Amino acid sequence: MKFHRVLAVGAHTDDVELGCGGLLSRLHREGAALHVAVFSRAEQSLPDGAPVDELEKEFRASMAVLGCDDVYVGTVPVRNFDANRQHVLDELITLKRAFAPDLVLTMNSADTHQDHAVVHQESLRAFRGVSLLGYELPWNQRHSANDLFVELTEADLETKVAMLEAYRTQADLGRPYVRPDVIRAAAVFRGAQGRLPLAEMYEVIAEIWRA
Amino acid sequence: MKFHRVLAVGAHTDDVELGCGGLLSRLHREGAALHVAVFSRAEQSLPDGAPVDELEKEFRASMAVLGCDDVYVGTVPVRNFDANRQHVLDELITLKRAFAPDLVLTMNSADTHQDHAVVHQESLRAFRGVSLLGYELPWNQRHSANDLFVELTEADLETKVAMLEAYRTQADLGRPYVRPDVIRAAAVFRGAQGRLPLAEMYEVIAEIWRA
Amino acid sequence: MKFHRVLAVGAHTDDVELGCGGLLSRLHREGAALHVAVFSRAEQSLPDGAPVDELEKEFRASMAVLGCDDVYVGTVPVRNFDANRQHVLDELITLKRAFAPDLVLTMNSADTHQDHAVVHQESLRAFRGVSLLGYELPWNQRHSANDLFVELTEADLETKVAMLEAYRTQADLGRPYVRPDVIRAAAVFRGAQGRLPLAEMYEVIAEIWRA
Amino acid sequence: MKFHRVLAVGAHTDDVELGCGGLLSRLHREGAALHVAVFSRAEQSLPDGAPVDELEKEFRASMAVLGCDDVYVGTVPVRNFDANRQHVLDELITLKRAFAPDLVLTMNSADTHQDHAVVHQESLRAFRGVSLLGYELPWNQRHSANDLFVELTEADLETKVAMLEAYRTQADLGRPYVRPDVIRAAAVFRGAQGRLPLAEMYEVIAEIWRA
Amino acid sequence: MKFHRVLAVGAHTDDVELGCGGLLSRLHREGAALHVAVFSRAEQSLPDGAPVDELEKEFRASMAVLGCDDVYVGTVPVRNFDANRQHVLDELITLKRAFAPDLVLTMNSADTHQDHAVVHQESLRAFRGVSLLGYELPWNQRHSANDLFVELTEADLETKVAMLEAYRTQADLGRPYVRPDVIRAAAVFRGAQGRLPLAEMYEVIAEIWRA
Amino acid sequence: MKFHRVLAVGAHTDDVELGCGGLLSRLHREGAALHVAVFSRAEQSLPDGAPVDELEKEFRASMAVLGCDDVYVGTVPVRNFDANRQHVLDELITLKRAFAPDLVLTMNSADTHQDHAVVHQESLRAFRGVSLLGYELPWNQRHSANDLFVELTEADLETKVAMLEAYRTQADLGRPYVRPDVIRAAAVFRGAQGRLPLAEMYEVIAEIWRA
Repeated sequence: MKFHRVLAVGAHTDDVELGCGGLLSRLHREGAALHVAVFSRAEQSLPDGAPVDELEKEFRASMAVLGCDDVYVGTVPVRNFDANRQHVLDELITLKRAFAPDLVLTMNSADTHQDHAVVHQESLRAFRGVSLLGYELPWNQRHSANDLFVELTEADLETKVAMLEAYRTQADLGRPYVRPDVIRAAAVFRGAQGRLPLAEMYEVIAEIWRA
Repeated sequence: MKFHRVLAVGAHTDDVELGCGGLLSRLHREGAALHVAVFSRAEQSLPDGAPVDELEKEFRASMAVLGCDDVYVGTVPVRNFDANRQHVLDELITLKRAFAPDLVLTMNSADTHQDHAVVHQESLRAFRGVSLLGYELPWNQRHSANDLFVELTEADLETKVAMLEAYRTQADLGRPYVRPDVIRAAAVFRGAQGRLPLAEMYEVIAEIWRA
Repeated sequence: MKFHRVLAVGAHTDDVELGCGGLLSRLHREGAALHVAVFSRAEQSLPDGAPVDELEKEFRASMAVLGCDDVYVGTVPVRNFDANRQHVLDELITLKRAFAPDLVLTMNSADTHQDHAVVHQESLRAFRGVSLLGYELPWNQRHSANDLFVELTEADLETKVAMLEAYRTQADLGRPYVRPDVIRAAAVFRGAQGRLPLAEMYEVIAEIWRA
Repeated sequence: MKFHRVLAVGAHTDDVELGCGGLLSRLHREGAALHVAVFSRAEQSLPDGAPVDELEKEFRASMAVLGCDDVYVGTVPVRNFDANRQHVLDELITLKRAFAPDLVLTMNSADTHQDHAVVHQESLRAFRGVSLLGYELPWNQRHSANDLFVELTEADLETKVAMLEAYRTQADLGRPYVRPDVIRAAAVFRGAQGRLPLAEMYEVIAEIWRA
Repeated sequence: MKFHRVLAVGAHTDDVELGCGGLLSRLHREGAALHVAVFSRAEQSLPDGAPVDELEKEFRASMAVLGCDDVYVGTVPVRNFDANRQHVLDELITLKRAFAPDLVLTMNSADTHQDHAVVHQESLRAFRGVSLLGYELPWNQRHSANDLFVELTEADLETKVAMLEAYRTQADLGRPYVRPDVIRAAAVFRGAQGRLPLAEMYEVIAEIWRA
Repeated sequence: MKFHRVLAVGAHTDDVELGCGGLLSRLHREGAALHVAVFSRAEQSLPDGAPVDELEKEFRASMAVLGCDDVYVGTVPVRNFDANRQHVLDELITLKRAFAPDLVLTMNSADTHQDHAVVHQESLRAFRGVSLLGYELPWNQRHSANDLFVELTEADLETKVAMLEAYRTQADLGRPYVRPDVIRAAAVFRGAQGRLPLAEMYEVIAEIWRA
């Protein structure tokens, strides 16, 4: 697969790293231009007393680990995406026009989180005519479609772990999914499923093979 | 997308051309090695009095139009694939080992024809670890998943039409789906759906992106 | 099938013609009373400088081609149907009581357009106890259920094409789906699938056969 | 709905009455020609010591209650339909040609009984181009699609109960589903669901509305 | 099954009794602590002239029949739950923390009523990590998953009927689903399906078996 | 959850351990009587030169680790289960009558392996009226339903690993899924998904809660 311009979108800081951090590392290694956009800095997910822009800082530190300096952080309040649905759509259309991606990574059709569902739905609407994959956040899904397995190298997995280590606030809150052993377990599990040493798994929402 | 070795499998002569003739033309243009395997020469689908190997001859003529000389024609009787399920699986495994494809095109999970269902099921079992797409034969499907749109050039469509013109026995029997206007209508319809001038549509059964 | 009072509903002008123009032509020929309701005159889908009621005029011209003078045009803004969900439902309930349809044609459960999804959902709620079919707008669907094939005559298809020729603004904007060759291709494709010369395809949302 | 020639098929004696006895009564009242075909006289479902043709006699008595004298009883052994799949298909094709139905009632796509699944699958293959409904046998289904509700009159329900009272062997074996109160409960339940006093519920497998 | 603390949630007064009144009776008999929460007293569903709190009174009378005095009645307007989505979620999270249920009964994923869909979606989000079952309101569902059958005793069914007899306003409005014969028919139908004398049927949304 | 008699069935030796080894360990700890039945000793899955009963010996060693001495090993040839479908069903019915389980663990509805599909289908038919869960073999599934999460203790996971260490022939053949790190990764991944430290995940095929 050769992609030149890849856009990854998520609802909140850390969604993108959790869902497709390994693939982003691989695409970066392979020379693709990356743009990462999240719509909320998730102020409500902070420990008491933390500065309101703490998660935005952690996200920017994580992107520095990846080597991506082309990022967007929006200001939609957590759990309020549905009231801002049209704003999310307008921003996605702006991103599509400005960045002209040949691949978009977005939230899964089976993700039950209210904000994630909005990003998924609006991605369907914004990115017609572009290949569109859905990354998984397994703790939010009642079912999963095992469409596409992306092989990761050990270095890709290490980059994913290092990106998530930037989220100290979430580790302090005891979120299991940012723990290195959980991230590695997911890569080993999806790898065994796809007959690969290490992998991430994706839903194929739409693919377009232009002539 | 870059594929180097592409295997297309079908139950009967003419399945492969109808389902993925345009993509095969495109892949051939782009330099991929092709292997086309069908399991039955469909003697029961001939007009009265036709030689029993007539459809095999038409298939070979069709493959000559495509420019593919690497073909396999099996001898499973029409509508008897389920009694020969293990034979079909063994042959698919042999093909996989001999040809080492990086992409396999096979029958759709929604195809209700009894022989097609066998080829689909056994493909799932034989081609673990290889990217696997399902082509559509719309008159056999109660539903369809619009996963992947492959853009065709006008030349690809003309090659597909020409391949199917080799099946004079089927045209004589009045089968609508080998008619040039029906083949073109499908490409225009799937193209409009995928925001492309002309297209074929595929189910993504499994994709593997090796590192 | 004998229906006496048929209500077709759509989000925007031209949805109904694209989805079920052929069936409406057939029902009109067969003597059914028709009512066509759309909720938005889609001002945002106009070329720059066009009068704001241009699409409403085109819709009325299209309905004149059909021979239906019983129409409703609402004023919900494009892409804002979800904020007006209850208004749409109330209007549908009013239509149901006033027109007493024995068949309702509405948007498909698989249509991903945000406004179309609202019309579909509210139709489910408004039309309990009435037969309800979903027409297809294929470029908005990730999958389709091929439940019901309606045979069209050549005259029905020509009426459908002529209705859509009333939408000069959309043709000028290069929308492929109003092109006569695309409309005909869809009818030929769905016809071949249903073993008919020409057809439209519908999702059966609910059917009621009263004693 | 107007149907003139209706074919009902089932795996075993009593399947058809249980699944669509009420609709058959209604169609008979409305003047349709009926043909009822079952593929097995279910010798293994008899009490010890009963004559091997007892269920066939009960079936014929049941059909006499309905007023249908155009029946077919096959000899496929219970739970052995898959080994006789091609025979079932051939018989269905013969029935289609001989009777030329405009509506076929068959087993549901969600029925998990091994013999029922064969009759369903082969019906899909045999009856392309004909409207095809799936009746429910709820104790065999893990899920159900509530597509179509057929209103029954009190007389239709009484005919259904009377048909099933012909199956004294099954009542003696304590099968709950032939009990009048269970049959009535199903009609009341499906009626309340469809906003009708009494109903049967059907899956729409395929509908064709010919011009 | 042993549950100690069971929370049942519904959109409107009478939803919970209709969907899971029999299971609540059984759990109460077996000694579980029950909490029942509904978000709307459904003022718009009253006959003209009835006091605005009439349905709340009927709900409380129904709960007295059950023997549950731990109830919550919210004030969300009927058909306006989507505008109050976040409020519903916040209340569910409060209930979860205060009551600490080991089983939650909520609305089904297939329920098409706009308010019911909100309660279902927000339950998914609020009750991660707790066993969660969806009860059925069959007249609102296009399909059903027959996952779990709960056997009821005759006494449980009588309690369910008696609870619903408290809703005199709904009986006066002619709602069929509060009629004793309809409630009994549902229990007999689901019982026959589950090979039980009387039953309620549930969707398994999520189950957690803690060590 | 309290179960007293639990039957686990699989197609081949090692299926049961891989799919539900942790839950069997937990149930054994909790005092349930266990019966484990597999239909094939999988002679074709052995390294060249291995004794034909080697996998049966490994299975019995594995069961000794679990502490279960009530086992059944059938003689159906690998990949030939469909020709022996009725035999599998008859054996399952015999097991049901002899062991009278209140819980059955069987293969998943989404498992694409030809033999596994037979065991799943026949389990549906044999175990009506009994609670039935489907365990996962992730490398055989195109999708998964995340219905039920079973918490495992560290000791349960260690027992599962130890059971699979009995399969030295499979480790020698390099099968990744018997590797301790892969087994642990699956338990950590499913645990994080279910908000538990360690877990196995199950499909709920049917549950019955008897009064």
